[in-house]
Amino acid sequence: MNMTRIEHDLLGDREVPADAWYGVQTLRAIENFPITGVPISHFPHFVAALAMVKAAAARANRDLGLIAPQKAEAIIAACKEIGAGRLNDQFVVDLIQGGAGTSTNMNANEVIANLALEKLGHPKGAYAHLHPNDDVNRSQSTNDAYPTAVCLGLQFAAEPLVAAIASLQQALSEKGREFADVIKMGRTQLQDAVPMTLGQEFDAFAVNLGEDVDRIGEILRLLCEVNLGGTAIGTGLNTHPDYAVLAVRHLAEISGKPVVPAANLIEATSDMGAFVLFSGLLKRLAIKLSKLANDLRLLSSGPRAGLGEIVLPAMQPGSSIMPGKVNPVIPEAVNQVAYQVIGNDLAVTLAAEAGQLQLNAMEPLIVYNLFSSIKMLATACRILEERCIRGIRANREQCRRHVEQSIGIVTALVPHIGYANATRIAAEALASGATVRELVAAEGLLTPAELDRLLSPQAMLSPAAGIA
Amino acid sequence: MNMTRIEHDLLGDREVPADAWYGVQTLRAIENFPITGVPISHFPHFVAALAMVKAAAARANRDLGLIAPQKAEAIIAACKEIGAGRLNDQFVVDLIQGGAGTSTNMNANEVIANLALEKLGHPKGAYAHLHPNDDVNRSQSTNDAYPTAVCLGLQFAAEPLVAAIASLQQALSEKGREFADVIKMGRTQLQDAVPMTLGQEFDAFAVNLGEDVDRIGEILRLLCEVNLGGTAIGTGLNTHPDYAVLAVRHLAEISGKPVVPAANLIEATSDMGAFVLFSGLLKRLAIKLSKLANDLRLLSSGPRAGLGEIVLPAMQPGSSIMPGKVNPVIPEAVNQVAYQVIGNDLAVTLAAEAGQLQLNAMEPLIVYNLFSSIKMLATACRILEERCIRGIRANREQCRRHVEQSIGIVTALVPHIGYANATRIAAEALASGATVRELVAAEGLLTPAELDRLLSPQAMLSPAAGIA
Amino acid sequence: MNMTRIEHDLLGDREVPADAWYGVQTLRAIENFPITGVPISHFPHFVAALAMVKAAAARANRDLGLIAPQKAEAIIAACKEIGAGRLNDQFVVDLIQGGAGTSTNMNANEVIANLALEKLGHPKGAYAHLHPNDDVNRSQSTNDAYPTAVCLGLQFAAEPLVAAIASLQQALSEKGREFADVIKMGRTQLQDAVPMTLGQEFDAFAVNLGEDVDRIGEILRLLCEVNLGGTAIGTGLNTHPDYAVLAVRHLAEISGKPVVPAANLIEATSDMGAFVLFSGLLKRLAIKLSKLANDLRLLSSGPRAGLGEIVLPAMQPGSSIMPGKVNPVIPEAVNQVAYQVIGNDLAVTLAAEAGQLQLNAMEPLIVYNLFSSIKMLATACRILEERCIRGIRANREQCRRHVEQSIGIVTALVPHIGYANATRIAAEALASGATVRELVAAEGLLTPAELDRLLSPQAMLSPAAGIA
Amino acid sequence: MNMTRIEHDLLGDREVPADAWYGVQTLRAIENFPITGVPISHFPHFVAALAMVKAAAARANRDLGLIAPQKAEAIIAACKEIGAGRLNDQFVVDLIQGGAGTSTNMNANEVIANLALEKLGHPKGAYAHLHPNDDVNRSQSTNDAYPTAVCLGLQFAAEPLVAAIASLQQALSEKGREFADVIKMGRTQLQDAVPMTLGQEFDAFAVNLGEDVDRIGEILRLLCEVNLGGTAIGTGLNTHPDYAVLAVRHLAEISGKPVVPAANLIEATSDMGAFVLFSGLLKRLAIKLSKLANDLRLLSSGPRAGLGEIVLPAMQPGSSIMPGKVNPVIPEAVNQVAYQVIGNDLAVTLAAEAGQLQLNAMEPLIVYNLFSSIKMLATACRILEERCIRGIRANREQCRRHVEQSIGIVTALVPHIGYANATRIAAEALASGATVRELVAAEGLLTPAELDRLLSPQAMLSPAAGIA
Repeated sequence: MNMTRIEHDLLGDREVPADAWYGVQTLRAIENFPITGVPISHFPHFVAALAMVKAAAARANRDLGLIAPQKAEAIIAACKEIGAGRLNDQFVVDLIQGGAGTSTNMNANEVIANLALEKLGHPKGAYAHLHPNDDVNRSQSTNDAYPTAVCLGLQFAAEPLVAAIASLQQALSEKGREFADVIKMGRTQLQDAVPMTLGQEFDAFAVNLGEDVDRIGEILRLLCEVNLGGTAIGTGLNTHPDYAVLAVRHLAEISGKPVVPAANLIEATSDMGAFVLFSGLLKRLAIKLSKLANDLRLLSSGPRAGLGEIVLPAMQPGSSIMPGKVNPVIPEAVNQVAYQVIGNDLAVTLAAEAGQLQLNAMEPLIVYNLFSSIKMLATACRILEERCIRGIRANREQCRRHVEQSIGIVTALVPHIGYANATRIAAEALASGATVRELVAAEGLLTPAELDRLLSPQAMLSPAAGIA
Repeated sequence: MNMTRIEHDLLGDREVPADAWYGVQTLRAIENFPITGVPISHFPHFVAALAMVKAAAARANRDLGLIAPQKAEAIIAACKEIGAGRLNDQFVVDLIQGGAGTSTNMNANEVIANLALEKLGHPKGAYAHLHPNDDVNRSQSTNDAYPTAVCLGLQFAAEPLVAAIASLQQALSEKGREFADVIKMGRTQLQDAVPMTLGQEFDAFAVNLGEDVDRIGEILRLLCEVNLGGTAIGTGLNTHPDYAVLAVRHLAEISGKPVVPAANLIEATSDMGAFVLFSGLLKRLAIKLSKLANDLRLLSSGPRAGLGEIVLPAMQPGSSIMPGKVNPVIPEAVNQVAYQVIGNDLAVTLAAEAGQLQLNAMEPLIVYNLFSSIKMLATACRILEERCIRGIRANREQCRRHVEQSIGIVTALVPHIGYANATRIAAEALASGATVRELVAAEGLLTPAELDRLLSPQAMLSPAAGIA
Repeated sequence: MNMTRIEHDLLGDREVPADAWYGVQTLRAIENFPITGVPISHFPHFVAALAMVKAAAARANRDLGLIAPQKAEAIIAACKEIGAGRLNDQFVVDLIQGGAGTSTNMNANEVIANLALEKLGHPKGAYAHLHPNDDVNRSQSTNDAYPTAVCLGLQFAAEPLVAAIASLQQALSEKGREFADVIKMGRTQLQDAVPMTLGQEFDAFAVNLGEDVDRIGEILRLLCEVNLGGTAIGTGLNTHPDYAVLAVRHLAEISGKPVVPAANLIEATSDMGAFVLFSGLLKRLAIKLSKLANDLRLLSSGPRAGLGEIVLPAMQPGSSIMPGKVNPVIPEAVNQVAYQVIGNDLAVTLAAEAGQLQLNAMEPLIVYNLFSSIKMLATACRILEERCIRGIRANREQCRRHVEQSIGIVTALVPHIGYANATRIAAEALASGATVRELVAAEGLLTPAELDRLLSPQAMLSPAAGIA
Repeated sequence: MNMTRIEHDLLGDREVPADAWYGVQTLRAIENFPITGVPISHFPHFVAALAMVKAAAARANRDLGLIAPQKAEAIIAACKEIGAGRLNDQFVVDLIQGGAGTSTNMNANEVIANLALEKLGHPKGAYAHLHPNDDVNRSQSTNDAYPTAVCLGLQFAAEPLVAAIASLQQALSEKGREFADVIKMGRTQLQDAVPMTLGQEFDAFAVNLGEDVDRIGEILRLLCEVNLGGTAIGTGLNTHPDYAVLAVRHLAEISGKPVVPAANLIEATSDMGAFVLFSGLLKRLAIKLSKLANDLRLLSSGPRAGLGEIVLPAMQPGSSIMPGKVNPVIPEAVNQVAYQVIGNDLAVTLAAEAGQLQLNAMEPLIVYNLFSSIKMLATACRILEERCIRGIRANREQCRRHVEQSIGIVTALVPHIGYANATRIAAEALASGATVRELVAAEGLLTPAELDRLLSPQAMLSPAAGIA
């Protein structure tokens, strides 16, 4: 039995493994691009999107009489199976590749062609009956099919991320309610400021993430503008006048996503603007998560020589040498994901800037980083929620002690004793170790009853309290 | 006559120049932060916004009976004059400063106080009559007044930028119409692809920038959510319950911008999300401008040994050694602005990530970079339009020659002679130097009449032509 | 037969797969950090380095009588096998992890312990006989063992990179010799400048990379300063006074690398400076490779409507729609590797800046990015050499034509006809299409013989020619 | 009296202000590049370096008989005065400019020409007697004169930076000695680890910066390789064969810096490698300073609800609303400088990558950012030393209390009671609030005398103590 079959392309003949569903052009790409070791199959959402684009094109070609119905149906059936996960392991080309995505597109064309050939009763490689270029890629160029699949794949990939953010936000919000009665010192510039509740602190974390869910929703709508039908440079050369509208309509139906043709296909073909925007939003989310992780690590610092206001759940022994040490490993992992995402955004930036004339040849790098960042951020949100936030306990005693000892509460007396007196009292408190209350009472600036009212921590948590 | 006056603060007495409208805290900030040499006054939009915030606060304090009407009116009058540009040179603190903006806020408080004192008939520094902290800063903290002024100042600063983008877009669009009949080769991956018009190319540039005008409009609306009234950490300590709503309403009236109170003032006080988003949009605009500049430089490369399809207007002699050389200096400047803006965005990113707990102490760096990038981008758009785009001429002869010699036009024949034949013809053309038309005719694959029709450049510019 | 065994740690009991060589702490790490999907085993150089560090520590502990000789020998034997590649697949923890490398260290400790236990005739998990912490990790902390292994692993990983750069440089240099007689136009700012040879151009590429080999050699020497013996924070707590020197001496012997103890172990434990420097060098190399790739793509642009001075070898069909198109896919892949490396450097930067007090908890991210970037750059150099540079051909005819038509050659006449005359001639040549030679001769500024001498391209390639 | 004079260039006639020492090309550059508002004169080190390069060229031209001695001496005298600071305000072109530095070069050529003309008794603009291009720029191109001046200017600019680092290092080292007896808890991952002294902590800070002084010294030596004599693209066209060596020798003499000709002038002309390396070193320094600033802010957090181990000197009132609040404003400014420098390094990276073929047209952006970052870092080091480090006091009481309450000290008992016992004790201490000492004594694991010895904090600071 033959272990290989012969395939032919512009560069000549090559032996392809007999059981490979991909063909000669995929084989060359494997050899040309051993870059990251991360193949297309690593992101099944992208594979599914590629299959949907090819099915939509086949439907449009069939409707316009550009492919024989029998061939079209075989292609459509093959795409459906691939979209459902079959042959995912045949999408073998490295995500970082030269050629502006041609190798990814050809990997899809070849796998689909061979699966369609099987359905028509032909052996793999019998492209005379159904051809990767002439049939599967009919009316398409890499330059429209590939970015369209990216736009669609990102829609799918973003869904688990949005769900993970929302779930994390929910967990933070619940902690906000749980800690609503824990009064503590707020801090600005790492210096004691004025009181707040731990619940307010966690609630602010939750609110902060809500905006990102909205913004990601907006960018996903922008990504629904696709350039399918533009072919090589957006002029639509070699397409039927009705093809673009028809193909995109089929794609919307197949994918369930409201994709529409971009208004100017030439602009859309070279423009990476929406990807840059998306990457920027992922960077912003990364910044927020990193700030959150930093705050959690600060607030849980200790246990004895730190702030120690909250206790994170222990997820693993913290040290190979220090017994009993428990470290904030989950927030630390979140920080690192954030930094990687910020680094990835820079790679996207560089790639986007490198576009030239009618195409951006660096698009595969953008694709790799967007899918990677989305996946890592979704994981980070999920482990942060499940392995950290949900298990956080308040150290109520420590929080209370910090407020009682605080000098910052003198701020609440300013409207009553003036900024100058308050400044003097603060300095004395710091120098002597006495409390603000003691000093103000000793000077007779306010009565004990007034002090009780003004310095009740609850009174310091909102506008109503300070100014009667 | 005394050349100085004595002022006092927490750290003791200091001599302030007698003619300085600012006071002791500003003086300390000048000494502490000799960082960039770029003072607040470099961005008059920001100074104006600071004055408006202080005026709005004074109005609200007056309405609530928290400041004597006479004082309030003096403050409001002082703010009005400062907003109109008076004493701009007294805003002397370096934009990069420690203290989370306190020095900027105090610079404003002190200048306003001294100008208001003058209106009340008191000498500079007579703060017993009207105090920078107790009166001008009444019901405020740096932590709400400063970011509110930033949000407002960015609204003003963005206006010339948006106008410059729109004007650049207009110029590109006009060139699109002017060059509508210049047929040329489109290029992908720097390799000859298929024909298009130079008009399509410029029109795509124009369309590309239109999206940014929209996105900047969106972020400006987000920046209308301000945290005025939150004071130190967003709890509104030391404010009257009605103050926040009242102050923001006055601010909207004074500024003419639809500012509203943020929904959660604690979250809003530490959050840099909107600034990060804005910086990200500026980065995206920079990427697009850089790509545009790169394309202009490529298309005008030569004059004899380059692409030479367009001619940029000469703005200055190009070389100190090579006579007659004219370089694309304006696009080169645009590239550099773009790179600086991308670098600035990284500084913003780092500063935003460094926020801790209830405040981001690095906000001044964000402010500096946002205002700088906006100003540089507006300049870049303007010089690109006026000193480059409007003077571009097409090299029609060169464009035409490139199409005629092109092998890429064989693509238009694929639906008629098949991919395999087309590939073979292309290879022969490349090897022999013959044209595609000659080879196809010689082989009798198509008749001269068919070739005339299919290879008429106009026929290759849109879907209708390729597929009958 | 049991499919699992029970292991115990600070957090309680857990079932570990019976055939796993790792233990409970590794198991927890797998669950805590499903971040990138890239496990330690992806970089065998790092695994080998970890094993060497553990072997060196075991030798030192043995010498000092801190571990029973039998145990020490079992550990040393286990390390040797692991260093040779055995059990590489048991290094399963994700490279991005919280805990500052503790999970990597414990993964190594556990695998080594279980392999040593086998050698002593005990089943996996029988830690009473030989313990991952008390024995394998004896006298160590993650905080010294982990960074020491990183320093060592980077030495190994850098070797193929240095070889690949040198080989690429060699290939460029050979092309420099091959193209020594191909005269062409040099270009500055994409505008025609003065003549040079294609050989000079390629030789400059070669020279440019030579510096990086030197710089990488320097940083590798700096990385030989290790903090082994510092334990938790660099004070050497819980180590014998002779341990540090002894362990590092053993490590030098085992590894063959000239490692030495850092002068200040406290400083060395938290400092990421050498890693930042290394990453910066990788970024510089990336910048140079990207510039080289950009130049290759520019010089090979065309084939008919571009510069077309060189022809890159075809590595795969270039387009799914345009027959015969061949794209510069290898340089494009190199560009993308470069952009990713620059992005990775930013991640390293962010992680390095995030160190706090006595440790940098983000070191795993630094490790991940350094090893990734080194590997990708080595691949990029190799494919660029083998699949691009070695196959480049000169388009001699095009190079010659560009020089002949050039206006820039007027520069060579400046010392003889003056800057003003030369400027005027250049302008006329550009306007009329005439050559510089024709115009100068027509005006009688120089004789034909003088023109022959001064404008012979060879005369324009070096100082001697221009000024007699 | 005429307010203007007429000058002429390739683009025609222009009126130049009569009192301007610069000429028409500078005028055009002012109009073309209103980018940052930061003119060349902002960096007098660079102006001086430009003058030295021009003087060296004039000397070499004189020696070779290429300029009349009288002219040469006038140029040399003019350069000397400019190098000493005269006419610094005439270097008016924006540092960010298109044209690869041509405008900076011409600004220098024109100012020098007019000053030399004055010395020869001619009015400004009488270029027939001494010409900016033909005489001042003789044997030069912007492409060699400009980068040579940059290399030299950076040498001068780096001197105050190196001095500031060394001085900061000294101050840290002195604090290290001052705090040598202050025992405190070391921290890893913000969790209490094992004891150290505050002196060790500050000493490590000092050591850490020492490496940067060395590395900057190395890069300055690399920057001594200059490309003067290469002219337009490094081939030395239009120079005398002896010119390059002669000019560089003169430059070494004039500048006192050991400049030498680069080995390959073609490579040197387009290579930005040394600048990238320098920028990378500045980035590394920024990272270290930012980490130091972060640590200072952490250690001084409080005063009551933070770590509070050190007290920073108060430099200004901290808050406009909170009386008595003192913020770490100097470290915060240092953080921001660091972030800006990291952003600037990205701008340098982008500009370096954008080089094309024989030149990097973006070099002015690199120049701008290098000089800016050097200046800002020098300032940051200086204010950090003078306004922060020198005034730091230890809070000895707080440091002692943290050690006494610590659980981390159990680590010192591991070699004596085993990891398992130690882990159990640690957990009990954390749960019960008891100290480690109490629990170990209660269980009789060690005698009080043994505990005294092992837990004496001094015993835990070095290897000798833990393992007898």
